[in-house]
Amino acid sequence: MKKIEHIGIAVKDLDNSNTLFEKLFGKAAYKLEEVASEGVITSFFKSGPNKIELLAATTPESPIAKFLEKKGEGIHHIAVDDIKSEIKRLKKEGFIVLNDKPKKGADNKLVAFLHPKSSNGVLIELCQEIKQK
Amino acid sequence: MKKIEHIGIAVKDLDNSNTLFEKLFGKAAYKLEEVASEGVITSFFKSGPNKIELLAATTPESPIAKFLEKKGEGIHHIAVDDIKSEIKRLKKEGFIVLNDKPKKGADNKLVAFLHPKSSNGVLIELCQEIKQK
Repeated sequence: MKKIEHIGIAVKDLDNSNTLFEKLFGKAAYKLEEVASEGVITSFFKSGPNKIELLAATTPESPIAKFLEKKGEGIHHIAVDDIKSEIKRLKKEGFIVLNDKPKKGADNKLVAFLHPKSSNGVLIELCQEIKQK
Repeated sequence: MKKIEHIGIAVKDLDNSNTLFEKLFGKAAYKLEEVASEGVITSFFKSGPNKIELLAATTPESPIAKFLEKKGEGIHHIAVDDIKSEIKRLKKEGFIVLNDKPKKGADNKLVAFLHPKSSNGVLIELCQEIKQK
């Protein structure tokens, strides 16, 4: 787990939140991306070496819709790079890996999640750039 | 707001969580620090250019004790660098600044917080290194 790649924040209304975070960071989101398979639409802001990803639900079944219902808007996950070697190592260490087989996420990444109940209430996303063939 | 300085995670038992995050990051906390004025004891982990700060309460009146009671363990705040110029700018932009006068936090920093209700449920800490005279 080499570094934090991004921090994901669940929001109700992506347009409103893009405006808000633009004020906060003093610069606009540099991309928007829908991940239909996850029922989310996302926007990305750069913050030094990190990214901030805003996530809004596009369907009522979206994990983001469920998160908003339970917890309201706020930080949703921390994403760290390095996936394949880490899944094995972290399972051995007793963490609950939710996706043995990484799935396609936003930002051209393969992703897998650790269950927050095994990591002090923090949803951790392991992610890794998909290499183009 | 140049970059994310650290991510703060509220935990119940600092010793247990130090062990857990040591497994997660594959390396131990590099420092422990108590901030008596805030009723917290903290530990710090390096993660690439960022830090992760674990925070446990030392008194029942600690803001961390209250957070744990309400929300349970999990991500507590995101800290970004740059404080003095940002407080003015962010107040103008409509954010609620909780500390007009920055206070002393952990890790030799002056800190001020934005109220989560003005920033999509995210508690944002502005921080800046205290320069030694």
